[in-house]
Amino acid sequence: MRISELAEALDLEWHGDDDCEIRGVATLTSAGPDNLTFLANPRYRDQLATTRAGAVILPPEAVEICPAAALVSTNPYASWARALALLRPERDRPAGIHPSASIADSAEIDPTARVEAQAAIGPGCRIGPGATIGPGSVLDNDVEIGADCRLIARVYLGPGVRLGSRVIVHPGAVIGADGFGLAMDSGRWLKVPQVGSVRIGDDCEIGANTTIDRGAVEDTVLEEDVRLDNQVQIAHNVQIGAHTAIAGCVGIAGSTRIGRYCMIAGACGIAGHLEICDRVVITAMSTVLDSITEPGQYGSGVPARGQRPWQRLLVRLGQLDQLFGRVRALERTGSSRDNNQ
Amino acid sequence: MRISELAEALDLEWHGDDDCEIRGVATLTSAGPDNLTFLANPRYRDQLATTRAGAVILPPEAVEICPAAALVSTNPYASWARALALLRPERDRPAGIHPSASIADSAEIDPTARVEAQAAIGPGCRIGPGATIGPGSVLDNDVEIGADCRLIARVYLGPGVRLGSRVIVHPGAVIGADGFGLAMDSGRWLKVPQVGSVRIGDDCEIGANTTIDRGAVEDTVLEEDVRLDNQVQIAHNVQIGAHTAIAGCVGIAGSTRIGRYCMIAGACGIAGHLEICDRVVITAMSTVLDSITEPGQYGSGVPARGQRPWQRLLVRLGQLDQLFGRVRALERTGSSRDNNQ
Amino acid sequence: MRISELAEALDLEWHGDDDCEIRGVATLTSAGPDNLTFLANPRYRDQLATTRAGAVILPPEAVEICPAAALVSTNPYASWARALALLRPERDRPAGIHPSASIADSAEIDPTARVEAQAAIGPGCRIGPGATIGPGSVLDNDVEIGADCRLIARVYLGPGVRLGSRVIVHPGAVIGADGFGLAMDSGRWLKVPQVGSVRIGDDCEIGANTTIDRGAVEDTVLEEDVRLDNQVQIAHNVQIGAHTAIAGCVGIAGSTRIGRYCMIAGACGIAGHLEICDRVVITAMSTVLDSITEPGQYGSGVPARGQRPWQRLLVRLGQLDQLFGRVRALERTGSSRDNNQ
Repeated sequence: MRISELAEALDLEWHGDDDCEIRGVATLTSAGPDNLTFLANPRYRDQLATTRAGAVILPPEAVEICPAAALVSTNPYASWARALALLRPERDRPAGIHPSASIADSAEIDPTARVEAQAAIGPGCRIGPGATIGPGSVLDNDVEIGADCRLIARVYLGPGVRLGSRVIVHPGAVIGADGFGLAMDSGRWLKVPQVGSVRIGDDCEIGANTTIDRGAVEDTVLEEDVRLDNQVQIAHNVQIGAHTAIAGCVGIAGSTRIGRYCMIAGACGIAGHLEICDRVVITAMSTVLDSITEPGQYGSGVPARGQRPWQRLLVRLGQLDQLFGRVRALERTGSSRDNNQ
Repeated sequence: MRISELAEALDLEWHGDDDCEIRGVATLTSAGPDNLTFLANPRYRDQLATTRAGAVILPPEAVEICPAAALVSTNPYASWARALALLRPERDRPAGIHPSASIADSAEIDPTARVEAQAAIGPGCRIGPGATIGPGSVLDNDVEIGADCRLIARVYLGPGVRLGSRVIVHPGAVIGADGFGLAMDSGRWLKVPQVGSVRIGDDCEIGANTTIDRGAVEDTVLEEDVRLDNQVQIAHNVQIGAHTAIAGCVGIAGSTRIGRYCMIAGACGIAGHLEICDRVVITAMSTVLDSITEPGQYGSGVPARGQRPWQRLLVRLGQLDQLFGRVRALERTGSSRDNNQ
Repeated sequence: MRISELAEALDLEWHGDDDCEIRGVATLTSAGPDNLTFLANPRYRDQLATTRAGAVILPPEAVEICPAAALVSTNPYASWARALALLRPERDRPAGIHPSASIADSAEIDPTARVEAQAAIGPGCRIGPGATIGPGSVLDNDVEIGADCRLIARVYLGPGVRLGSRVIVHPGAVIGADGFGLAMDSGRWLKVPQVGSVRIGDDCEIGANTTIDRGAVEDTVLEEDVRLDNQVQIAHNVQIGAHTAIAGCVGIAGSTRIGRYCMIAGACGIAGHLEICDRVVITAMSTVLDSITEPGQYGSGVPARGQRPWQRLLVRLGQLDQLFGRVRALERTGSSRDNNQ
């Protein structure tokens, strides 16, 4: 693809030579003359000056220092996503049901859907047009899959789980297992049946080995365009607003409601029965124990330091309460001295 | 089911009309006149006054403000669990082996057990009466499954793993993978074979994508009625006492022993080779680095605050050691001044 | 096996009687007269005096207090690993393809490899000599598996993933799912195609339910002899140096580079785009937010304490900024008083 063609397809202004043919993609440091690359994170701006790439998607302010053809975008990362979709299109996989798949008689599979090897689809399931059920996936009874969903492989969807359209579910994800409902009764745990299910909106993406529990009574809900990374744990009856993105290893406890356009960084824990409003950003490894009612950035991650200073700080924390007492004593001495003078 | 019938079945006192027929379950806010609901968490007491439910399971102190028929229970959550078991019984699934399942010749499957699609059962396994091996599950060699166990789907059980009776294992759980045993030897890691296995007591429940490693020499052990939520990691040779419940994303390092009736909240980390006594409660996102010998509540989760105050607090923590020095200096100045006067 | 034979096979000096035959292995406390055991962790030294074992692998300084035959090793844990490999050899599993496995026509399976029940192998895959693809595993297209690899069971390997030789992958691991690449575009997330893959060096071990994402453009890379425990999350374009070991539940965000011979304890979180140099040790539950350029030990895990003292400490932290002000005021008062005198 020539640069002029690429620019037209991406609807971008461009500068430089139109000689070279773009045959592949690479990073700023590894690209060669027939590669397209991009600059989105200013952290990598220094790498632009020395890139050997044939063309670079970049923001307007970087055009001047670009040694290659420049495709100018106010949102270079989004333009890069579109360029990749052009240059590295998804492999087309034909519709049909693999002979090793196991399909219950009462399941309805759209003729344009694809069911891959070793999948198991239970009674009452409905698979929409263009959807792919990847190898080794298990759909329990009465699961509904919207148009063009992609269950990559080895996904589990529990009874009555419903996915909207174009939902992507990565391998090992478990959607619709029982919530953790237990009543202590005469010294033993009694399991509380979980009779809700899970409803996932259009254009959501669920990461590898992520778990989303079915609701206790009503459904656990992800609105549209929610993006979950790997190993996220969503407990029963959580609700997540549209366009919220949650990074890896986050856990959200039961019945908490997360707003729209929130961004939750990796490995945070959010307690149950909270309300987090729209447009909240939580920084990595933070613990959220209270509702948040104002948009903005929140956190409690403690950055690591060398083991000696860290141990010393822990000792100081143990003495902190005494320190308050010592300061109080100094203040009292000072004021009694002032009174005496 | 009429309310009087329900009350009798649950062995509860009741108040109000016996007119309505209970046809389903719902929450306090969504219930209609033919729905049963419940009040267990006092946090939701305000919702009782306006519920449109036909009947409510509730504690004695809430009867007066209940606008619907009241089923009175000193343990409403446990009564709710029993009511659900009556009103929404588990679907009955017939015994038998799905034709797509793969069973080793030497495996013994009780004729009343059920093996679902795409399951793989290795040599020497024994599946007890009434047990269900869900779709896509893999049992390595010599696994023993007690009566009425339910492996929901896509479960892995390693060599020699033994489950008691009525154990529930949720999708994606891995029980009996090798423990993390490594010896550094001439600059390379040498794998230490893990020759123990895992023993799970009666009535345990293992959450989705939870992992329980096999023992290094002896077995990793869960006593009866232990309840693990999703994405819990139990390392080799951990022992967990009866009736302990562990919430999502908790990790427990090797050889630690947890007592009976402990409750460990979400995302805690517990170091290896510790002893945690009976009836210990650990609050969310805490780090346990020392043994605990007294029952009670423990924690170290730091609640998130706004990014500015949090950053300021981190700066202050960095200056804390100096602050101790400054207070010491003030104390010295004060006492020398006192001596001088 | 007689003790003299064992000592010769392990190339160890030995003391004591050669009468007994070693028939099994056990721990110091559970071993009987025909068992071999070991002492590696000084924490268990007290158990040596009362062991009933027939023979003990131990360090030179413990020979004197050993009541049984002693096999003397300067690295008892490594010698124990070798002894187990002798006494409890891996079951030999014959080569061949299970009839329930599903293999794409264009896949090349070495005749000495083994493909187990319900596995699914996609087009263009190449499985090396002596490799085992465990039950329920899914290999997407163009996966390369080196000699003698062992995919235990229910493993997923994404398109183009390459494993070196002797790599062990435990159940539920997902290698090569898409990285978490999203561009916000006109109020919606746009998925950024992830066109890199994952490259795993020789002798690596990947824990149960661990996830390693494919690279955005270039590959995510583990050098040789990297050891990952269970439920580790490795984001796109992370690079991990040879001989580094990472314990359970650790998360590493995108594009971070970890050096060689690092040891990262359980449940740590490491932010993205960092460089961690060789021979760094990170203690449990720590948050790494900055690059580390000096070998040594680092941490930020806060040990749990009783709930009351912990709550009090949290209150004191909330007052810490004020305390600095109070100390400043005392210092000012002191110096103005000194000036006045």
